[in-house]
Amino acid sequence: MLIVKKFGGTSVANKERMYNVANRCIEDYKKGNDVVVVLSAMGKYTDELIDMAKDMNPNPPKREMDMLFTIGEQMSVALMGMVMNNLGVPAISLNAFQVAMHTTSVYGNARIKRIDSERIRHELDQKKIVIVTGFQGINKFDDYTTLGRGGSDTTAVALAAALNADACEIYTDVDGVYTADPRKVPSARKLNQITYDEMLELATLGAGVLHNRSVELAKKQGVQLVVRSSLNTSEGTIVKEDAKMEKMLVSGVAADKDAARIALIGLKDEPGVAFRLFNHLARHNINVDMILQSVGRDSTKDISFTVAVDNADEAVEIVERHFHEYEKIDVEKNVAKVSIVGAGMMSNAGVAAKMFEALYDEGINIKMISTSEIRVSVLIDEKYTERAMNAVHDKFGLGDNR
Amino acid sequence: MLIVKKFGGTSVANKERMYNVANRCIEDYKKGNDVVVVLSAMGKYTDELIDMAKDMNPNPPKREMDMLFTIGEQMSVALMGMVMNNLGVPAISLNAFQVAMHTTSVYGNARIKRIDSERIRHELDQKKIVIVTGFQGINKFDDYTTLGRGGSDTTAVALAAALNADACEIYTDVDGVYTADPRKVPSARKLNQITYDEMLELATLGAGVLHNRSVELAKKQGVQLVVRSSLNTSEGTIVKEDAKMEKMLVSGVAADKDAARIALIGLKDEPGVAFRLFNHLARHNINVDMILQSVGRDSTKDISFTVAVDNADEAVEIVERHFHEYEKIDVEKNVAKVSIVGAGMMSNAGVAAKMFEALYDEGINIKMISTSEIRVSVLIDEKYTERAMNAVHDKFGLGDNR
Repeated sequence: MLIVKKFGGTSVANKERMYNVANRCIEDYKKGNDVVVVLSAMGKYTDELIDMAKDMNPNPPKREMDMLFTIGEQMSVALMGMVMNNLGVPAISLNAFQVAMHTTSVYGNARIKRIDSERIRHELDQKKIVIVTGFQGINKFDDYTTLGRGGSDTTAVALAAALNADACEIYTDVDGVYTADPRKVPSARKLNQITYDEMLELATLGAGVLHNRSVELAKKQGVQLVVRSSLNTSEGTIVKEDAKMEKMLVSGVAADKDAARIALIGLKDEPGVAFRLFNHLARHNINVDMILQSVGRDSTKDISFTVAVDNADEAVEIVERHFHEYEKIDVEKNVAKVSIVGAGMMSNAGVAAKMFEALYDEGINIKMISTSEIRVSVLIDEKYTERAMNAVHDKFGLGDNR
Repeated sequence: MLIVKKFGGTSVANKERMYNVANRCIEDYKKGNDVVVVLSAMGKYTDELIDMAKDMNPNPPKREMDMLFTIGEQMSVALMGMVMNNLGVPAISLNAFQVAMHTTSVYGNARIKRIDSERIRHELDQKKIVIVTGFQGINKFDDYTTLGRGGSDTTAVALAAALNADACEIYTDVDGVYTADPRKVPSARKLNQITYDEMLELATLGAGVLHNRSVELAKKQGVQLVVRSSLNTSEGTIVKEDAKMEKMLVSGVAADKDAARIALIGLKDEPGVAFRLFNHLARHNINVDMILQSVGRDSTKDISFTVAVDNADEAVEIVERHFHEYEKIDVEKNVAKVSIVGAGMMSNAGVAAKMFEALYDEGINIKMISTSEIRVSVLIDEKYTERAMNAVHDKFGLGDNR
């Protein structure tokens, strides 16, 4: 078997954890497997590098930022090489140049294009454990790029695809994917399996276990993922196309408090209004999430949309400066988005209604609704977030052991 | 003009010094010059990396050690890139992969073989200041190598040669090359010029301003060096083939306290004895510096030699274990080697005698003597080191302003 194992920053934050990771990899190696390990920078080292850079230049060029960032993972893999060798196992560390991890040219947010797996295969043939820097790549200019926060997950998936690996294991500090955040919903339950699409929706909704792009790539390349804890040996959650959801309509509940609602009242009810509004926002790089359009009084309409809290003031400013086709603008920052996700809901009417019922039972008002084929999201008052999550979780019986 | 400027760790140890270095480079750049900057790791960062490694594995593989070491210079160049950009000057940092700094394959002590200067020329053509990682290279396996302590000097010289630079400036924390260490010989004087060979002898003798190998390479490639201070704008010392020594016989005095003398008494006076002795030492990687053979009593001979203090005990052990052809062994650790260096002495008899006279005047006993074409070294009691240096320095009038 060829196994790709990815460990995040907290899993390699100090000497003890490094040895823990090394031993887990060596266990697989000693069973006769080929083992490729992908590591992130140790602990909060990437944040330290950012502080270092900002001290030198408050607005550092992204190209130089990536040149600086990549040393974090190189430190992890070199030290891990030393640890494994100290444990008597031949191991070799490789960076993005050595792996030939080709990416698009965008600094700070590159996408993997192609991996020349020759060097890795050569080292595996020499019976070495191969330790690869996550998060980094090289572009057509022969410059370092980085894949964005959490990009090491994507590195692992891309390597698993390029090497045609038998398993791709993502180690993290939680046991796997849960039906909801266990810190907020005490009855939350670990899922044994989940589909790529469900995982994607959960990742997008801030469930945060896996990097969004890594799930996309895994789906595209057909790489089966396992999300496991680096701290214990429990089974984890398998992410794959045909996950058996045990007749569950809904696989998880997620919440995102980083949302602000902007409402424009009294727009003319004519074509092109929405286009002009969102075009202004797009041109200023404001990402819009939920959008709601409703008929207002006297042949006018209202449009509400949500943006990240940090973007709210800028979004209002842009609207006020460039878009004059409304009567009134209204901003609400204390809102949260609560979502349910599940491949089962595609073929089941009534799922959304059941969610709304749960909220109604709790007396929680719904401000906006948005849906996809496998997701229903509602915007509510931020202070009711936990109550809403628990109510919905219970309503769908997600905590029950089936 | 194309100028290569090298700054050591102390010159880039913190933000203030980084900006100081940046401003010095920008000054040359604004005069219309092409500027290539070579940097070492910041301050004592390389030592920190060693500590980090030893904590993980007391005996880390050299290949992984080099993988770890190289992040030090990459940090320096990336941050310098940010600093220069903050000062409004386009600058780009490059590491050994990007510069294609090919070396021999020996980890920890590689030699530069070849530099593909294409990328650097391309960036210079874009009117950028190019900032290159010193000390590091890549070998035929596509692995990082390092050039040994002080290797950034060699990087600068190799780049100057590959780019056919008009100047190669080595910035350090002293003003230039002195006739002796000014902390020990108050009348020591800065030299305006010195030949490669003299500089080489001084470097070897522990004068420590320039990395030995960098001087060898500069001589071989005909690269004219300037040693200058990064802290002030004084002229520095020019190192070149036909340095004008202003009729000076001797250009400098150096001392090395890291020496121990081992004396073997009563060896048979027959062929092969010396070979067998030094062969044993060589096979155990003990470097021998001065060697003296003298006729003893009764058709025996005595052999004395010096080794680094740290190697003295091991050397004695090796001799006792493998070489049984002597009557008595004697070790002396409190000795120092004092040397004079000067291209002028080649054609001048009497230089050595003048040195011995200076020591005799001070009542200092000479234990061993060794000479090259441009150097005379004597071994003396360690406690007389400073006195001997000053006496010799005065005797040759090195402090006089001519």
